[in-house]
Amino acid sequence: MKTASPITSPSPSAFPAVWLRDNCPCPECRDPRNDQKLFGVTDLDPRIEVVEIDGTTVTFSDGHVVRFDPAWLAAHALDGTVPDDRAEDAKRLWAVLPPPEGSWSRCLSDPSHLLECLDTVLHTGFVLLRGVPAEPGRVLEVAAVLGYVRETNYGRLFDVRVEATPVNLAFTGLPIGPHTDNPYRDPVPTVQLLHCLSNAVAGGESGFVDGFHAAALLRAEDPAAFELLARTPVTFRYGDANTELTATRPMIGLDPLGRIREVRFNNRSLRPVRLPYERTEAFYAAYRAFAEILARPGLQVNVRLGPGDCVVFDNTRILHARTGFAETGERHLQGCYADLDGLAGNLAVLRRRQAVVEHLRELFEGPGAADYLGEEVTQAAHMLQTAACAVRDGAAPGLVAAALLHDVGHFTGEITGHDLMGGTDNRHSHVGADWLGRWFGPEVTEPVRLHVAAKRYLCAVESSYYDLLSEASRYTLGVQGGPMGAEEVAGFEAEPYARDAVRLRRWDDEAKEPGRVVAGFDEYAALLHRLVR
Amino acid sequence: MKTASPITSPSPSAFPAVWLRDNCPCPECRDPRNDQKLFGVTDLDPRIEVVEIDGTTVTFSDGHVVRFDPAWLAAHALDGTVPDDRAEDAKRLWAVLPPPEGSWSRCLSDPSHLLECLDTVLHTGFVLLRGVPAEPGRVLEVAAVLGYVRETNYGRLFDVRVEATPVNLAFTGLPIGPHTDNPYRDPVPTVQLLHCLSNAVAGGESGFVDGFHAAALLRAEDPAAFELLARTPVTFRYGDANTELTATRPMIGLDPLGRIREVRFNNRSLRPVRLPYERTEAFYAAYRAFAEILARPGLQVNVRLGPGDCVVFDNTRILHARTGFAETGERHLQGCYADLDGLAGNLAVLRRRQAVVEHLRELFEGPGAADYLGEEVTQAAHMLQTAACAVRDGAAPGLVAAALLHDVGHFTGEITGHDLMGGTDNRHSHVGADWLGRWFGPEVTEPVRLHVAAKRYLCAVESSYYDLLSEASRYTLGVQGGPMGAEEVAGFEAEPYARDAVRLRRWDDEAKEPGRVVAGFDEYAALLHRLVR
Repeated sequence: MKTASPITSPSPSAFPAVWLRDNCPCPECRDPRNDQKLFGVTDLDPRIEVVEIDGTTVTFSDGHVVRFDPAWLAAHALDGTVPDDRAEDAKRLWAVLPPPEGSWSRCLSDPSHLLECLDTVLHTGFVLLRGVPAEPGRVLEVAAVLGYVRETNYGRLFDVRVEATPVNLAFTGLPIGPHTDNPYRDPVPTVQLLHCLSNAVAGGESGFVDGFHAAALLRAEDPAAFELLARTPVTFRYGDANTELTATRPMIGLDPLGRIREVRFNNRSLRPVRLPYERTEAFYAAYRAFAEILARPGLQVNVRLGPGDCVVFDNTRILHARTGFAETGERHLQGCYADLDGLAGNLAVLRRRQAVVEHLRELFEGPGAADYLGEEVTQAAHMLQTAACAVRDGAAPGLVAAALLHDVGHFTGEITGHDLMGGTDNRHSHVGADWLGRWFGPEVTEPVRLHVAAKRYLCAVESSYYDLLSEASRYTLGVQGGPMGAEEVAGFEAEPYARDAVRLRRWDDEAKEPGRVVAGFDEYAALLHRLVR
Repeated sequence: MKTASPITSPSPSAFPAVWLRDNCPCPECRDPRNDQKLFGVTDLDPRIEVVEIDGTTVTFSDGHVVRFDPAWLAAHALDGTVPDDRAEDAKRLWAVLPPPEGSWSRCLSDPSHLLECLDTVLHTGFVLLRGVPAEPGRVLEVAAVLGYVRETNYGRLFDVRVEATPVNLAFTGLPIGPHTDNPYRDPVPTVQLLHCLSNAVAGGESGFVDGFHAAALLRAEDPAAFELLARTPVTFRYGDANTELTATRPMIGLDPLGRIREVRFNNRSLRPVRLPYERTEAFYAAYRAFAEILARPGLQVNVRLGPGDCVVFDNTRILHARTGFAETGERHLQGCYADLDGLAGNLAVLRRRQAVVEHLRELFEGPGAADYLGEEVTQAAHMLQTAACAVRDGAAPGLVAAALLHDVGHFTGEITGHDLMGGTDNRHSHVGADWLGRWFGPEVTEPVRLHVAAKRYLCAVESSYYDLLSEASRYTLGVQGGPMGAEEVAGFEAEPYARDAVRLRRWDDEAKEPGRVVAGFDEYAALLHRLVR
């Protein structure tokens, strides 16, 4: 079996002095609250040099001294990579595939499902959400969960159905070939949502084509045509009584490294190109070659949207089409636009939160599942039983999480739970609360912080309480300071989270029963996810 | 004196067959309601040819025959131009200039002033609107008139003032160097508005720099540095508890023809570049060279925003800065984002409307000012007197416009007012109404259409009316059909705009007084502008 080799951190000498100085992580140079740099590039000494390197600690010629985190240096090695989640090499290109589906109700209840759906839009290009109530306006609720609605001349929301005097081909029953929307807008809306309220007509199927894949095929099959489309800005236009929009951009947009980054394709609104004669002919040949690839049946995924279906797609990449339908039947979609940056941002926040949940899961499955601290249940089982008591008693989500996590301080501090059992107070309630404070608010951290104090408090104010304690708990009570004195009791009662801590304490005492079957960590994943800040 | 040479229209043979066929203007190929093409490029015969050209009428090998408008062909000559209002060559670049100012109240009352302000944002890059009421939320009203608000994680609207726990440097009293906003967003908001509610601190001045001009200077002074910044995508990032945004784009964005099209500049949120060592050094040298140009005092316009000032600027081009200020004083701005496409679209619609108004003005100043039709006042004076009567009597704007324009049919038809005086009914009311119908709704066109019928109606139903008519009017009554019969009277009374037409008719009869001083055409320009559809 192969094992992963440990990451070797580069020395600071692998980076230019100006790079190191500009990326100094110290709180004078970078605001810890938002990670923003507090200076401009011209504020740096143009002759900045490194005068000493000691491990990863760097002394600069301007007198500044800072230690770089070796893992951070390793993660930012000067390897020439320019990762960009919007460029072709970050995408999963496809020819045909079963339409990726998600459940709207699961998106609302389970952050990890929402995360998968957003990831699918960003990397596959579209997702078909099922079960969005077939009621007018609901598409805006979907957009609000994904990102922010982009309002346009069509409104925050638009209806796609047959109209008597259509201002746009969309509002007829005519078939529409693969296209991107609003090519005459710059910035173009980067996400589109289409929500089906009714679809009782014959025809009216929706089709989706991966424009990045098609462009990559064109590049492989006809490199000159690809170059011509990428190097020729063309103008798209839309006008009606109150609107006059134009945008001038190439049909295939590349980033400065030549990677495909945007497709704009819509003959309806293409204005006449004004290239010289021969180049115009070459342009049309290239345009046709691209259009023919886009029209290949093997590259189109077809879906018949039914009431409650909402398709969400990347309008810079995925072309959509629809077959014609009888204008007499009822077919009603509602659509709106949004943007990929907001969607990708929400995805990144969900990932950050998921990473916290995964980290906690590892604690439960690793040390927590193996460790006994003088009780007949593992620490993981003890915490799960405590959480189950909190759920049974209708505790608020923050307090359920506090119950679930109240003893994490035993694993995360430098002094462990075993030290506590050996007679050294590991202050696990404070250590745990501080550790959790990186991700959770006081509704989680403070009951954890006070749960040991609550034991000492109850021993002081409730004569029968001491008798309920387990043997191990009576032992640690001494290590932790014994019952509170009168002044301490008053101080404890003044704490805002004292009542929650006392509730937690009673569940804690109750949760030491070997073999009791309770919900596992997974049952709490969504609850934890939503509490992460 | 030089006179403009007449435009010579190119022959259709100057255009490739596929271009002509794709740009066919006939209503089968192009929806007249929205100018959208009704076919895709693959619907065209790949071997399409022109088989005959007769003048500008083209017969294609697929049997399609169409006549091209010679003026349209001339306007779309294949001269290789790729006009793009967002690229540097469409801009008025500047080093320093007096801050361009506008009045918010004039924007609301006078479309041509609004037009100038929007044009200034699009072409100069920013405008300082004075007199926006210094009340919270008003900036959204300004944005709504310019285009559409772009909602972000900062909300639809954000407050810029000192905060206790700032998530962003903007919310402190620290100085901030020239930068563009939200470089970590893609699409970046292309317009920013900042509205001053109060500014009682020492310092806190706002500065503006033309980033396109600075980039063009860099290109002239250090072409290699310019190339490096244009060819190197860099990543910008912003993160807080609920946000995690990144965008990867070059600091100087070019279009495929190499024209400067976007500047992104903000050291605060620049992530570490990961280019190879030497290229990293070269990148920093280029970055510093650009930053030093941006910091040149001779390139920055400084403004002290006072309460009621609202600056609107192109965030893809104009960098903004502010000097530091004492955090104890009161300084409160509200900002929001919007987009250039909406702004440019509104500008284009205003221009279209203005062109209509200018065309009407030419009628008044040209033939209308010279023509007498049997009265002692010119036709222009007659129509202005009619409009003045309508204003005096509190008529609605549509009816004022109808009064002003009721006789335009004398100039616009093939049969003129002089033919009418010669005994041939030129049906000027219908001709005028139809002509006006290209731009105006029925509230304008229908009273015009019915104003001759109203004379015939009044002669039939009001015995004293005939006596009021001028001699010329009595003469034309006969040419126009004489007083109505009973059936015609009933038909007229059933017309929805009959009452307006009768009011217009009475003003018409009253408006033939030589030398009466009334408001000129200019006084009606804004009213007409707002009525154009």
